[in-house]
Amino acid sequence: VKVGIYGAAGYTGLELIKLINRHPEFQTEFATSEEFAGQSYEGVTFCPREEADPARTELVFLCTPHGASAPLAKAVLDAGAKVVDLSADLRLRTPEAYQQWYNHPHPVPELLPTVYGLTEFYRDDIKGEFRVANPGCYVTTALLALLPLAKSGAIKAGTSIIVDAKSGVSGAGRKPSMGTLFGEVYGDFKPYNIGRTHRHTGEIEQELCAAAPNLGPLVFSPHLLPIDRGLLATCYVQLDEGWNMDWTRKLFNEFYEDEPLITVLPDGGMARIADVARTPNTEISLHEATPGMLIIVSALDNLLKGASSQAMQNANVMFGMPETAGLL
Amino acid sequence: VKVGIYGAAGYTGLELIKLINRHPEFQTEFATSEEFAGQSYEGVTFCPREEADPARTELVFLCTPHGASAPLAKAVLDAGAKVVDLSADLRLRTPEAYQQWYNHPHPVPELLPTVYGLTEFYRDDIKGEFRVANPGCYVTTALLALLPLAKSGAIKAGTSIIVDAKSGVSGAGRKPSMGTLFGEVYGDFKPYNIGRTHRHTGEIEQELCAAAPNLGPLVFSPHLLPIDRGLLATCYVQLDEGWNMDWTRKLFNEFYEDEPLITVLPDGGMARIADVARTPNTEISLHEATPGMLIIVSALDNLLKGASSQAMQNANVMFGMPETAGLL
Amino acid sequence: VKVGIYGAAGYTGLELIKLINRHPEFQTEFATSEEFAGQSYEGVTFCPREEADPARTELVFLCTPHGASAPLAKAVLDAGAKVVDLSADLRLRTPEAYQQWYNHPHPVPELLPTVYGLTEFYRDDIKGEFRVANPGCYVTTALLALLPLAKSGAIKAGTSIIVDAKSGVSGAGRKPSMGTLFGEVYGDFKPYNIGRTHRHTGEIEQELCAAAPNLGPLVFSPHLLPIDRGLLATCYVQLDEGWNMDWTRKLFNEFYEDEPLITVLPDGGMARIADVARTPNTEISLHEATPGMLIIVSALDNLLKGASSQAMQNANVMFGMPETAGLL
Amino acid sequence: VKVGIYGAAGYTGLELIKLINRHPEFQTEFATSEEFAGQSYEGVTFCPREEADPARTELVFLCTPHGASAPLAKAVLDAGAKVVDLSADLRLRTPEAYQQWYNHPHPVPELLPTVYGLTEFYRDDIKGEFRVANPGCYVTTALLALLPLAKSGAIKAGTSIIVDAKSGVSGAGRKPSMGTLFGEVYGDFKPYNIGRTHRHTGEIEQELCAAAPNLGPLVFSPHLLPIDRGLLATCYVQLDEGWNMDWTRKLFNEFYEDEPLITVLPDGGMARIADVARTPNTEISLHEATPGMLIIVSALDNLLKGASSQAMQNANVMFGMPETAGLL
Repeated sequence: VKVGIYGAAGYTGLELIKLINRHPEFQTEFATSEEFAGQSYEGVTFCPREEADPARTELVFLCTPHGASAPLAKAVLDAGAKVVDLSADLRLRTPEAYQQWYNHPHPVPELLPTVYGLTEFYRDDIKGEFRVANPGCYVTTALLALLPLAKSGAIKAGTSIIVDAKSGVSGAGRKPSMGTLFGEVYGDFKPYNIGRTHRHTGEIEQELCAAAPNLGPLVFSPHLLPIDRGLLATCYVQLDEGWNMDWTRKLFNEFYEDEPLITVLPDGGMARIADVARTPNTEISLHEATPGMLIIVSALDNLLKGASSQAMQNANVMFGMPETAGLL
Repeated sequence: VKVGIYGAAGYTGLELIKLINRHPEFQTEFATSEEFAGQSYEGVTFCPREEADPARTELVFLCTPHGASAPLAKAVLDAGAKVVDLSADLRLRTPEAYQQWYNHPHPVPELLPTVYGLTEFYRDDIKGEFRVANPGCYVTTALLALLPLAKSGAIKAGTSIIVDAKSGVSGAGRKPSMGTLFGEVYGDFKPYNIGRTHRHTGEIEQELCAAAPNLGPLVFSPHLLPIDRGLLATCYVQLDEGWNMDWTRKLFNEFYEDEPLITVLPDGGMARIADVARTPNTEISLHEATPGMLIIVSALDNLLKGASSQAMQNANVMFGMPETAGLL
Repeated sequence: VKVGIYGAAGYTGLELIKLINRHPEFQTEFATSEEFAGQSYEGVTFCPREEADPARTELVFLCTPHGASAPLAKAVLDAGAKVVDLSADLRLRTPEAYQQWYNHPHPVPELLPTVYGLTEFYRDDIKGEFRVANPGCYVTTALLALLPLAKSGAIKAGTSIIVDAKSGVSGAGRKPSMGTLFGEVYGDFKPYNIGRTHRHTGEIEQELCAAAPNLGPLVFSPHLLPIDRGLLATCYVQLDEGWNMDWTRKLFNEFYEDEPLITVLPDGGMARIADVARTPNTEISLHEATPGMLIIVSALDNLLKGASSQAMQNANVMFGMPETAGLL
Repeated sequence: VKVGIYGAAGYTGLELIKLINRHPEFQTEFATSEEFAGQSYEGVTFCPREEADPARTELVFLCTPHGASAPLAKAVLDAGAKVVDLSADLRLRTPEAYQQWYNHPHPVPELLPTVYGLTEFYRDDIKGEFRVANPGCYVTTALLALLPLAKSGAIKAGTSIIVDAKSGVSGAGRKPSMGTLFGEVYGDFKPYNIGRTHRHTGEIEQELCAAAPNLGPLVFSPHLLPIDRGLLATCYVQLDEGWNMDWTRKLFNEFYEDEPLITVLPDGGMARIADVARTPNTEISLHEATPGMLIIVSALDNLLKGASSQAMQNANVMFGMPETAGLL
């Protein structure tokens, strides 16, 4: 299967190049980058966008910014190829939600809704699809921690759900900016867009509400970690009557027991970034805070399960291949 | 004023040596270390404990481990000098509370209760005192964020208070251990003793309950940050009826307006470790999560305001000197 | 092929466990660790040394300290298995050299000399061998940069060879020590054992002299880099008459053109740790300093090509398997 | 004394603001920054360049890029104030040398030569001067290690001098660029502009040749360290006949014995970045490589002694103040 990548010289694009190289069936046909055109990475030479022809591929990954991705997705679909969009353009279900969180009209509203590529929860919908919206990195981390509870009615209605999340710097992309210079980040740690202002808030809530419409508001606090990659979320939820640690632990074990890329740690275990960085895996640990409050810690690599390896996982499902092909 | 330091070659002891060197009135008389005896740091030569004579000093800082500090405190007091204990031995008000959190009987129960050295809140009690318990680093960070609210009745009765805290590695001390080796921490981030198991939980609750006995349980989640120094806590509280952002902001501004070492950031500001590392200052920022939930972010240097500079601040108050002598 | 690892919970042992898991023919039979006995890593459970039986294996990797390794090597050989020793015990050719650099008599002198496992230079000798001495990390980095020159007579007789080397902290092993605590290394950079005092000096010189007995003294300056893994050496040599950049570049290209794990960068390229960390590859770049002086920069991962992946490379050769099995 | 800073929001400018705040006689009159105009740092509000009036000051620090600094220096001098230029514009003694290393004609050739502000070696010339060229960070580190030898004829005529230098990332400035993004530097280490291509080569040689015209070529290898600040150079020189470790140690001790900001470590000591980061001090250690080759290790903070604190030291000398005013 010939594969194209738009925006291939950013961090998620570089990861995809490596994943495709290891994949038994995929092969990079083109990888666009204006800035690095002519240069090579892992045997793949970047080309400018106008030299890329999606019609020569069966699959395209979009690592382009939101706003630019949707028109590209349309062009790729028109050319007959399948598309996994790693930007935010296809994640929200309505143009109104997109306008609300991204402050401009959706560029190609007819593409909404698109199947949401949180593979473990939507793989039946993804199978055979032509376009898939790859979830945000914070969103994936939060949802893998919260969806089993939300879907089972374990969260007390109307109570706030707190996601205190910490991400490595590569989550901010590879574009030069003062805030992500080494000298500005080294030795520091800080929150940003705290409360309900980060754009991933809407995306997390969309999926939580679809699972349990009676949930209280999401409180989402992202922080910038002075490491290159990895994302860990510490989530606090109030359990509904009748739920305790034994039940929630059993719930998570059952939800994820057949999932090759998700590990629920045994009692006493503690999810950490070192265990998941540079892997497609997610680790989840459960902790009792008080009898009524559960802490769920969820850790993954923001560039892999938070972006490129989940994109590959989705592509595998779209093409009917083994879901972990190229990943393990 | 001649000053002694027990346990002076750990991170907090080394900071104290530097602070005393800069202090206009204090002078290091002895600095004990078994391991580094004979070696020097910033002009001070370490000596073994048996060569230290507290009777030749007017003030002693204890940077020794809990369990070992209380007997030393007694010896220092018996020798006629004042003492600031940076360990946990004198922080909890009763031997029972100590036994509960430290799993062994208090070595010198007659020293309890000791005045609690959270300077901004107890300076009237500290004045002229002979012994002061220096607060824990996490505790200082959490209490500076929460006490203004607790004392004013702003927190909704019975609701959980969540402190999601992140500390640099020096908080774990300078004793060799595999968990704090460079190779184990670099590139990682993880929670530990999460929920209500960390020993600082009892200390934070003791002070919160003294301020507002009707508060709900504390949920305390410490995490290990891959940096050398700095501590940031993201605190979540539910506000009582009638409290909103304007009121809470006004409350914090009034509480801390005359405090030289505490800065409440203006609206839109965000506390971060880079601003406080290697300083005696604390930064606090306030953020609305939802109409009823407030986020307070508090940042300080765990070795300074979280330990040694607060010890110096307390010593200044004990001796009637300007509170920031040697610190600014 | 069943494989045993002694000292498997150190950094090189952990890497070997992962490499064996990926190897098509090898399988871990035992992995010893006193401290971690009973715990697991990547599906392998550590056992105490007395429960390990080398007779049940065909191959054993020794990740044990020097002094302890040689007796284990003997025991393994007596049990009929092959052995790759990652310690220094079998690297020097004579007991006298060992005594000189390690300050104690060689524990099993009859094992000397052992075939030296710098795979690219000794693979013909390694084939079918029962015991191989895996080279030191600094040594591998320096020799891959210097041996092509030494073997070709390109280095001016009698002139000093300078190796200014910088290693990540994992090179110091996983044993707790104050010098490798996170708080001691973060933000620092320093030389150690500079000049001719580091033990790898003797090992580098042994191999250089075997290639060109007329060389001047080695000046070897190791430095500690504040990163977890990776090693880069900047080497300075004076070229003999008649040698210039074109010739030396041609020389390196020819030496390494068929080597799958060694890349000589084209003109203008610059070896760096980011390109080789977490890979079995070595990168080498060549730079003219002055008409008579060449700079060779060589970079590899100290735990892989500097230890475990080279050990695996050697094992592959010993068993007649493809040299990069399990590595690419 | 009222002081102005052009280009004050870069790393060296920010350090100067802090140093001036601590200085007993200096006071910031203006601090220009186009990008941060209106924002404040340590009580100083940045203004656009056109609002700065050097005529209202007695002293101006130029933290502007080379090319832009010389015209500003002229304007400041015309306005009657003294100037310390932290850029490279005034460091080389002739317009020809400037053209050679900076690839464009010198913007204000009549300013050359300017007194060279390596304070310890030129303080008599700096006294009362109106303009001083502040040395480069690498240059300061190298010269403090090499000048005592060069001035004493200790270096063997015609032999290469090797400076293998490693600098923290802040040396590259605060302007956004991909190469200094956190994600590009973290965990990496690499050489750049190696050999004789870095612009500081000419500046180091200029000063060495003035001290000893018979020296061989300089080989200068800068490397990028993954830390925010600090610079360490490992220098290799061949000693002339008759020089040995005792003599060279005595030489350095005599050269620097009255220097408050330079420490020559005793035998066995090893200069390291942790000891000098965030201080105005330089540490130097001496090591015998072979009987004829000396290694000098020199460490300082690239933003302080390598830039801003040396600028302040020079300003103090220019105004006849104590040389370390505001620094200790």
